[in-house]
Amino acid sequence: MTSISSYIEKHKQRFLDELLDLLRIPSVSADSNYAKDVHRCAATVAESLRNAGCEHVEICETSGYPIVYGEKNVNPDLPTVLVYGHYDVQPPDPLDLWNSPPFEPVIKETKLHPEGAIYARGACDDKGQFYMHVKALEYMVSEGALPCNVKFMIEGEEEVGSKSLGTFVRENREKLANDIILISDTGMIGRNAPSITTGLRGLSYVEVTVTGPNRDLHSGLYGGAVANPINVLAQMIASLHDENRRITIPGFYDKVQEVSKEERQLLAAAPFDLQEYKDALDIPDVMGEAGYATHERNAIRPTLDVNGIWGGYIGEGAKTVIPSQAHAKLSMRLVPDQDWEEITELFQKHFEAIAPEGVSVAVRPHHGGQAYVTPMDHIGYQAAHKAYETTFGKAPVPQRGGGSIPIVALFEKELGSKTILMGFGLDSDAIHSPNEHFGIWNYFKGIETIPHFYQHFTALSQGE
Amino acid sequence: MTSISSYIEKHKQRFLDELLDLLRIPSVSADSNYAKDVHRCAATVAESLRNAGCEHVEICETSGYPIVYGEKNVNPDLPTVLVYGHYDVQPPDPLDLWNSPPFEPVIKETKLHPEGAIYARGACDDKGQFYMHVKALEYMVSEGALPCNVKFMIEGEEEVGSKSLGTFVRENREKLANDIILISDTGMIGRNAPSITTGLRGLSYVEVTVTGPNRDLHSGLYGGAVANPINVLAQMIASLHDENRRITIPGFYDKVQEVSKEERQLLAAAPFDLQEYKDALDIPDVMGEAGYATHERNAIRPTLDVNGIWGGYIGEGAKTVIPSQAHAKLSMRLVPDQDWEEITELFQKHFEAIAPEGVSVAVRPHHGGQAYVTPMDHIGYQAAHKAYETTFGKAPVPQRGGGSIPIVALFEKELGSKTILMGFGLDSDAIHSPNEHFGIWNYFKGIETIPHFYQHFTALSQGE
Repeated sequence: MTSISSYIEKHKQRFLDELLDLLRIPSVSADSNYAKDVHRCAATVAESLRNAGCEHVEICETSGYPIVYGEKNVNPDLPTVLVYGHYDVQPPDPLDLWNSPPFEPVIKETKLHPEGAIYARGACDDKGQFYMHVKALEYMVSEGALPCNVKFMIEGEEEVGSKSLGTFVRENREKLANDIILISDTGMIGRNAPSITTGLRGLSYVEVTVTGPNRDLHSGLYGGAVANPINVLAQMIASLHDENRRITIPGFYDKVQEVSKEERQLLAAAPFDLQEYKDALDIPDVMGEAGYATHERNAIRPTLDVNGIWGGYIGEGAKTVIPSQAHAKLSMRLVPDQDWEEITELFQKHFEAIAPEGVSVAVRPHHGGQAYVTPMDHIGYQAAHKAYETTFGKAPVPQRGGGSIPIVALFEKELGSKTILMGFGLDSDAIHSPNEHFGIWNYFKGIETIPHFYQHFTALSQGE
Repeated sequence: MTSISSYIEKHKQRFLDELLDLLRIPSVSADSNYAKDVHRCAATVAESLRNAGCEHVEICETSGYPIVYGEKNVNPDLPTVLVYGHYDVQPPDPLDLWNSPPFEPVIKETKLHPEGAIYARGACDDKGQFYMHVKALEYMVSEGALPCNVKFMIEGEEEVGSKSLGTFVRENREKLANDIILISDTGMIGRNAPSITTGLRGLSYVEVTVTGPNRDLHSGLYGGAVANPINVLAQMIASLHDENRRITIPGFYDKVQEVSKEERQLLAAAPFDLQEYKDALDIPDVMGEAGYATHERNAIRPTLDVNGIWGGYIGEGAKTVIPSQAHAKLSMRLVPDQDWEEITELFQKHFEAIAPEGVSVAVRPHHGGQAYVTPMDHIGYQAAHKAYETTFGKAPVPQRGGGSIPIVALFEKELGSKTILMGFGLDSDAIHSPNEHFGIWNYFKGIETIPHFYQHFTALSQGE
């Protein structure tokens, strides 16, 4: 039986080309102008699963974008791994900040990626990462090295809150039954510092609108006499943090699970250089909640960020106007045991309560999800640990991720199984940013590591 | 000699049609996409001056958009009136709030305008109002009723800060020499409450950019750890007002001329109904500087308004991003004796000073102008007073305008002459807003009143 590494060696170029083709499809789920492309992407993913050896491949229609499903059954007595990923991507804008078109992948060498990195929207999040699992399966099937049953579920709405996934999972508990869920949609600390994400933050995403006068007004005739929705919105947003950068929404921290000294020490063990961090972002200094280090502020603490704001005249030149409305998109990152729906309600109540007399405020909840933690004593975590040890030659460290994969909590609730987050991207891969990229070394390292997880997990679940 | 009113009666339809044609030209100076139209508009204005009886009509090129000049000399021993106006208009957006296309004028009856109002961008500001002077000239010339010399100077950059006008005026002091400047680019209180604007606020317009990380970041991976430029900008903007809605920029109020009790009483005499005001704007309440009434807040007090703000993801759906930059356009309305350049400097210093460690801030001064006051004992004011009395049948009241015509202060400095602001628009005409309009009654009333000003001014300046 060919080893995974020699199999990769043999098919390197094809593995790359297939991913590049996938990246050429602009499957932007947030913008309906790309609807056709998102559907085209689903079809391409289904085809790739068939080619990799999946059976019963289906494009499952939903009220939104389809979910691609496929499975390969070896023996009902053996454990089943469910692989989850998403084929939709973030919007590419601002386009002018890309060095090459977001949907025309190019390979460039960088300091961090001497073997080259693939530059394209979705290269790392999540096309490049879920496709590692497709290629790992191809290897295991074609070489008769698949030790257990496997199911794939690749959705197309992750970047817009996985609207349809909840219903799909609830309606297909049987079909999706599994012993462990495997997801590559996170990062690792570095090529020499493999890490497994043990925690994810939850999310509450809202859109707010402040309405003042019933029409845009001349700022000369009305300036100073009526509430300006932009000034008011700025004031309201500013008031959401206190001088210690703590969020002022009443009850916001009530259910926050404080992380133990022990785990904080373990997390602190991960290599982190504040100066490098600041240099990489060109920022004079970091900023965050008093009493916590940077690697804690973006992982074990809840936060509130404005993701977009707009109002008034934003075109070329000048316009002296008091706009009728001002808008903002805000998201809160949550930690165990905050409940995203409860937090959304708290935000809404508070934001409406602090609106001054001169305006009216509307809060529109967008989407959200719960935070999640993987217990390190779970056999899934141990199997992943061994797999990394094998291919990286060193033990991985646990890592708390700042991002959100809301459906992980959903899976546990609906399917009763734990999720293992084996991410192979780097923080510097610029996901959700212009010039998103994914290291070729990371891509192949992922394909190489995954089959080891299958072997170790199967063995461990049989008590070996 | 035909009276002005019967002359209007006779040419009513043509006077309207000519204005509608002028309004069909989208002469938006703030947006270079309209450059061709702005130039076309200048040519049309020049032609209309010739047709009205002007001599030496020229389209004077500048570094920006041309200034249209024309004159009609009767006798060098007689006084000279210089008419100023502008043929450029504000950008029409937001387009979706217009009930009819901004550059396809339509006439509709309203409660305030039973004879109908012309709906179009520029109908009142300022095409409709400067064109009253062109038609008044046509009458005076064709009927031999022009009692003095007249010069026209119609520019095309008023809505973007009259960039080229200063140079033009300085280089043409001779040509522009005059005894009084006449401008219709303001409003009056109501058709039964004629008023003359005796004061205008100055302006300082700036654009600010807050820069954080060197690229857009994933709000999950970085949220809480780095300064978010939008949150920071909101905080900085909020801090520019205190709890009494006074502006917190150090030194901002140092040179503000407090208006005398007497004048405040005169101004308070103007009819004003707070409830009507709130109803007209659909606002639950007004908001402004403590210690001043609404009609004072927007006239004799300086203010600071955000006219536009943008940053992050403002498209359809959701994007969890921390943007690299956030931007805002701000303008301050100034009163005598604040100096706009000094205030711009104070703003810049202060705004840079309050920037937190995690970001860098850039302030780009845009344009500005000084505040202005017309002394009520000036013969120009008295001539206007008599003219209104004649055509409205009642004495006009003095009014402090909240808007800015920065060039009025420039004229006094460079040409040594005072300006009379005879505005015929209404506050409700929605200038700078969607559905800008100008009452047909107001248009003809203006044409009727102007010749009386010429007669009274000529008489008064000859000591009659």
